[in-house]
Amino acid sequence: MDKPYVIGIDVGGTNTVFGVVDARGCILESGKIKTGNYETAEAYVAVLAPELNKLIEKAGGKEKFNGIGIGAPNGNYYQGTIEDAPNVLWAKGKIIPFAKMIGYMTGIPAVLTNDANAAAIGEMTYGIAKGMKNFIMITLGTGVGSGIVVNGQLVYGHDGFAGELGHVIVRKENGRLCGCGRKGCLEAYASAVGVARTARQFIEERKAKTILTELVPDVEKITSKDVYDAAKKGDRVAIDIFQYTGRLLGEAFADFVAFSSPEAIVLFGGLARSGEFILNPIKEAMDEYSLRIFKGKTKVVLSELPESDAAVLGASALAWEIK
Amino acid sequence: MDKPYVIGIDVGGTNTVFGVVDARGCILESGKIKTGNYETAEAYVAVLAPELNKLIEKAGGKEKFNGIGIGAPNGNYYQGTIEDAPNVLWAKGKIIPFAKMIGYMTGIPAVLTNDANAAAIGEMTYGIAKGMKNFIMITLGTGVGSGIVVNGQLVYGHDGFAGELGHVIVRKENGRLCGCGRKGCLEAYASAVGVARTARQFIEERKAKTILTELVPDVEKITSKDVYDAAKKGDRVAIDIFQYTGRLLGEAFADFVAFSSPEAIVLFGGLARSGEFILNPIKEAMDEYSLRIFKGKTKVVLSELPESDAAVLGASALAWEIK
Repeated sequence: MDKPYVIGIDVGGTNTVFGVVDARGCILESGKIKTGNYETAEAYVAVLAPELNKLIEKAGGKEKFNGIGIGAPNGNYYQGTIEDAPNVLWAKGKIIPFAKMIGYMTGIPAVLTNDANAAAIGEMTYGIAKGMKNFIMITLGTGVGSGIVVNGQLVYGHDGFAGELGHVIVRKENGRLCGCGRKGCLEAYASAVGVARTARQFIEERKAKTILTELVPDVEKITSKDVYDAAKKGDRVAIDIFQYTGRLLGEAFADFVAFSSPEAIVLFGGLARSGEFILNPIKEAMDEYSLRIFKGKTKVVLSELPESDAAVLGASALAWEIK
Repeated sequence: MDKPYVIGIDVGGTNTVFGVVDARGCILESGKIKTGNYETAEAYVAVLAPELNKLIEKAGGKEKFNGIGIGAPNGNYYQGTIEDAPNVLWAKGKIIPFAKMIGYMTGIPAVLTNDANAAAIGEMTYGIAKGMKNFIMITLGTGVGSGIVVNGQLVYGHDGFAGELGHVIVRKENGRLCGCGRKGCLEAYASAVGVARTARQFIEERKAKTILTELVPDVEKITSKDVYDAAKKGDRVAIDIFQYTGRLLGEAFADFVAFSSPEAIVLFGGLARSGEFILNPIKEAMDEYSLRIFKGKTKVVLSELPESDAAVLGASALAWEIK
């Protein structure tokens, strides 16, 4: 192959990770910088680009690269822009022509999509969704993201922003305030932050004994990982938190199935690591709320890609599409 | 063109309409039979097929036909089957290999999809969605159906049943019982039947003076058409019924946009003829409930195809895909 490599870049809320990837999906070289410490996109790219160029040189120069794929919050596939990403200081309230900037600084053509779409492409190219033509990727991290694949293609919509399933409204009445400014979004319940909120709510409401408050006396500091640790020890409150979160996800998934009837819903991210604690209530509620013709047809599975690699692999897979 | 014609068949809950269509979308011949008066699919097809064969002969014989396209409730595109259609006597609780039966009886290859998908194809081929790659068709009739187009292709899902947006759950708490057996489905509110239920509910709750009860003294007999007539006369209760229904649709549409970010949502069917009475509250609620990046981007438009033709045209358009 003339151009045996691609680069994948994952712009996360905290860290940016990147790597040189070959056609089999092996990450040959990788690196990492902080995402958030910059006032402007230019300042951020001025740090990122030299790091990329080091890896490019090491791999034999830019001629060896088919392209650069980027996964970023609020990434617009059609425009190559990051648009008003609320959790990234240099992209808040701005439209950043990020793919162009990276292309200019490296001399390699770059394409960009949102991080959950990149994860879906990674799953389809290297992961559990290999060979699937219809599936939905749900990323359960700090936020809740999604990448939807229909007829073997990512759904970008007419404007490049399709697939914001973290922001379907699951509680119309008395819904929790979401980071997006609206109320009752799935993300306000099923993100890591949402689970921590549920933990505080349950502890306050129930006044029951729970290992959680022994593990983390300051309830403001409870994380979804703490809830998992407590659930593993058989703590009732912690198990109920997953039950509540999982059922909400399952209800929402029943609606997603009515939309695109996917072969599978693939879960990825921190909360997905809670395994059966979250999977069982998801499957129960999904079955309960599904229209009869859909019942029992859509699998809910966990991503098997190592989390640190999946984002980079997913972004990189996008770069093979560049002609 | 060797095979200048196709046939479109629309299997509705009450009537089955069919027609011979040319490449420009002109309906050259058409016919109609009752759908529901038969105990078995065989008995129904035994009446339908001779009617089709008459039209086929008249047009010059089966050699002139590229195919037959069928729109039917719970139609499975991949299998060519009608599966457990609750409103069709001969298809309730059964799996009918309908495309095969029609193909066998006419000697022309037949394909089948659900009626709302057929309407979406019709809209894309001959109607207001011509040239659109991403749109959602919502049919507001006795029930609420949908056909979703992504990247210029109908979304069938892994099993052929995708696009049941009438059955997303819009009221999680105290939701109305839906014909599907679940509670709170969009269809239970936004179908013609749903609007009539809202009318009875509003009349009972408010005990206000309304033209509706003058027009139709027996509230059990109020139809969505009566509500429209009363609204046109400025009746407050009738206008509020549309307001309530439209807002519910708009809320749901905001979630649909988060899914596939379509260029337009196209409304079709009886309720769509209520024009501004239903469109204005839809647009208001959709704007209110949309995620910021989507606000104001997705048009809500009314189908411009004559309703009697659209179903046949849509089904027939499917038959051009047969190779």
